[in-house]
Parts: sequence; structure tokens; C-alpha cells
Amino acid sequence: MAELSKASGVAIPTIRYYLREGILPPGEHTSPNQARYDDTHVRRLKLVRALLDIGGLSVAEVRDVARAIDSQARTIDILDVAHSSLITLKSQADDEDRAWALALLEQAAKQVDWVVDPDDKSTEAIIGVLCTFRAIGHGGLLEEFDGYVRLAAQVAQLDIATLRNLTTNESIVEHAVVGTVLGDALFSSLRKLGQQHESRKLYAADEPGT
Amino acid sequence: MAELSKASGVAIPTIRYYLREGILPPGEHTSPNQARYDDTHVRRLKLVRALLDIGGLSVAEVRDVARAIDSQARTIDILDVAHSSLITLKSQADDEDRAWALALLEQAAKQVDWVVDPDDKSTEAIIGVLCTFRAIGHGGLLEEFDGYVRLAAQVAQLDIATLRNLTTNESIVEHAVVGTVLGDALFSSLRKLGQQHESRKLYAADEPGT
Repeated sequence: MAELSKASGVAIPTIRYYLREGILPPGEHTSPNQARYDDTHVRRLKLVRALLDIGGLSVAEVRDVARAIDSQARTIDILDVAHSSLITLKSQADDEDRAWALALLEQAAKQVDWVVDPDDKSTEAIIGVLCTFRAIGHGGLLEEFDGYVRLAAQVAQLDIATLRNLTTNESIVEHAVVGTVLGDALFSSLRKLGQQHESRKLYAADEPGT
Repeated sequence: MAELSKASGVAIPTIRYYLREGILPPGEHTSPNQARYDDTHVRRLKLVRALLDIGGLSVAEVRDVARAIDSQARTIDILDVAHSSLITLKSQADDEDRAWALALLEQAAKQVDWVVDPDDKSTEAIIGVLCTFRAIGHGGLLEEFDGYVRLAAQVAQLDIATLRNLTTNESIVEHAVVGTVLGDALFSSLRKLGQQHESRKLYAADEPGT
């Protein structure tokens, strides 16, 4: 265990905690007080740190992801578990607003062949944001919604393309989590730089002051 | 003031506080105990609530935005103040990492004609995220960076297009803030729906289990 701690950079008491919580699978016992750990354990610890520190997941959520991996679930199902944990936005809108938002999403999703499942957490998050736009009187900002959906589909294609060459579920999930969280931060700041560029073009030309 | 409170939905003590803080310009005094407020004040209160509640800005940051508006600054400069407040990601990377990240950004920015100012806060945020990708050993996720920059430029074009028909600085800044914060949440959840769609396409085809 001392070697595992050294290889992974995770402290021994923390490793013991992960073992107890079922987040880290047990090593192979070589004697009552000794167990053998291998690369699988180092990779798992790396993933757990990414989920906790970067993904901001709770220990319980990390355990769900770890269980999905250990149960030999399909990659797609493991990613679903990880994705769900990353989505926190909940909707507080009434039924009419939700119906309007779902119809808007379904219409826009057709152009990119997305399947929209109303019970899916991503769908729930999108409906929540759409209803918030409407509730604060900024529904007008949604006039370009179809365009945003088309661009989001292209961004998602790039996201998944970078996973294509990975072989272990551990590395796929870790990359997906890091890519999602840091990727959102990166895209959001690129978008702001682009907004500055575009607003300079729009306002600098025709406006000496207001 | 009672009427202003009713029209804006903001409580009278809060309005007094905003007046003291210089966030809300004084009304026109009609007697020692009476002042006249107009639509400008209602609009300002709406903006202040959006900045505080949706943008998550501090009172001091809201005051900076209000001052920029009151000083008759150019729209572009006001948006810069608002944008800066929305950008919180700071970089803790060393000089070599920062130089690498700046070079990567400058190279990618060429294709969309963005001007990259190393001292700008958006640039700082992008450099911070790029260095974080590298620091945690996920630099490989950046192989599609050029593509992300191109797509972010297109998203920013849509963002600014929705501002085109607005006429007052108040409404432009409010829409920009709401659009940036809610817009990030919306795009992030659309991206996740797209990732699910793409990962299903990639993994469902060739994989019964792992």
C-alpha cells in the first residue's frame, strides 16, 4: 500500500477510506497484512481524484461510477452515470413552461438527429435553463436556439473524437469527466473572447459614445 | 420611491441601499422629502438584480458597471467591465506553461481573426484552463483546440447577433450578462446531450460489454 500511495500520490489513510467505501477494489492478498496492488489501482485512484477534485462529484457519486466500472457495465452506461452526476441544474418551472421548452428542444434536436428523452438528466437541465430564460423575460435570447443546437452538436463531436483512441473504461471516463468540466470552462472563456471580438466589430464602428 | 419599488419589485430599503452605494442614480428632487423616479430607474434596478442574482457579481462589481454606464462610456467599454466581472478563473501556472498556452491560443486565434491581448482577462482565463489541462496530464484533449476556437467564434457571433436590436446600454448589458451566464449553462447542457448522442454512436455499435 505504501508503494501504491507513492505511485498515485494519494495518502495511505485516504486509500484505506476508498477501499472501505468500495471506490477502490481490494488488492490481491499475499499474506494477512499484505496485498498486491497493480496499475489498475493506480489508474482508479487517478480517476477518483479527477472525479472528486475536478468533477466536484460527491463520494457517493464517485462510488456509483466506480461500481458501474466494476460491474463490467458497457462504456456507454458508465458514461451515463458519470454524465448524470455532472448535471446539477434542476428545473422549478410549471408544466406549461416545461411543455413549451420540451417542444422547442424537440424541434431543434430534429436537425441533428438527437433523441430527446424527457426523463433524461441532460434534457431536464436544458428544459430548466430554457424555462429560466423565459421566466426572467429573456425568451428573446432564444431566437437563435436552432443555431446553438447545431454548434453544440459539432462541439460534442470533437469531444467524443478525442475519446476514440482510449482503450480502458477508466481512461475513457476520466477523459470524459476532465473534458466535460475543463472543456466547459475552456469553451466558455473562448466564447467570451469571441464575444469581445464580435461586440467590438458591432459597436466600435458606429458609436463614438452613448 | 414607493411607486419605484412597486414597478421594479425591489424593496424600499434595498433601493435606499443602492442609492447610497451609487448603484442607482438619484431621482429628481421635487421637495426635500420627495423625488421623482422614471423608467431609467426601473431599468437600472432590473439590471442590478440580473447582475447580482444571475451574474453572481459582488455589489462592488455592480457599482463598477453602473459607473461605467453613468459616465457615458462607450457600450464596448461597459461590456468590457461587465465581462471582466464574469471571468473568475485565475491561472497559477509557471511562465513556461503560460508561454506554451499563449502560443497555442495565438496560433488558433489567427484563423478567426481574434486579437489576443495577453493582459486581457478572457485571455488569462483561457491560459489558465489550458495550463490546467496540461498540469493534470490531459494535454491530449487539446488536439482539437483549433476546432473548438472556430466553433466558439460561431457561438459568439450568435450571442452578439441577439444584441443587435437593443438600443439602451442598460438593456445591452443586461442581455449580455443573462446571455453569458444562462447561455453558458444552456450550451453546456446541450453539449452533454450531444456527447451522449455521439458516445452512443461510437460505443453502442462495437461493444456488448467490456
